[in-house]
Amino acid sequence: MVKVLAMYGQPIDAAAFDDYYFKTHVPLAKTLPGLIAYEVSRGPVMGVLDGSRPHHLIATLSFDSAEAVQAALQSSVGQATAADLANFATGGVTLIMFANESI
Amino acid sequence: MVKVLAMYGQPIDAAAFDDYYFKTHVPLAKTLPGLIAYEVSRGPVMGVLDGSRPHHLIATLSFDSAEAVQAALQSSVGQATAADLANFATGGVTLIMFANESI
Repeated sequence: MVKVLAMYGQPIDAAAFDDYYFKTHVPLAKTLPGLIAYEVSRGPVMGVLDGSRPHHLIATLSFDSAEAVQAALQSSVGQATAADLANFATGGVTLIMFANESI
Repeated sequence: MVKVLAMYGQPIDAAAFDDYYFKTHVPLAKTLPGLIAYEVSRGPVMGVLDGSRPHHLIATLSFDSAEAVQAALQSSVGQATAADLANFATGGVTLIMFANESI
C-alpha cells in the first residue's frame, strides 16, 4: 500500500479551515481515481515527547501503488484537489508519499 | 485508533541506520505494551509535489488510545525504546501522535 500524507500546519483560522476542509475539500479529494482509503486525524496532532502541536490536521490517503498516486495527481480531479489547497491551507501543507508495509 | 509516527531525517550513514533499525530497534519496539500494528516505509519517502526526500524512513505504530500510548512510553520498554533512538537516528527523529479515523 502506498500512503500519501497531507500534513497541514496551523491555519490562521482553525474553524474556517475545518469548515472548508470537511465540507469542500474532502468530498472533492474522495473522488480521486484509485483512492482506496481516506483517514483524517481527529483531535490534536501532538509531539509525543514534547507536547508540541506541529500540525493542525493530518490526512492519510491510501493507493495501490506509486503509479496510482501519479495517475491520481495527473487526473483532472487531482489537479483540482491540489489547486484547492490554496483555498484553506493557510498554515501550509507538506505532502509526502511512501510505500508502507507491516513488519 | 491512535497512530504514532516516527519520522526519521536522513541519517549520516543510511546503511548503518537500516542495519541497526531493523535488527535492533524494531525487535525492541515491537515489544511495546499495547502495540497493535507496526508499519514501516519501504523505498524512498518522497515529497509528492517536489520530489524532495524529507525523511529517510517513517514508522507508523498503532495503539488503541492516547492513554495506551502514554502507558507504553512510561513502561520500561518504552523508556528503552526512546533511549535507543540516540544509537541510530543520526538525522534526527520527529515523533507525533494523533487519533485517526476513516472518513
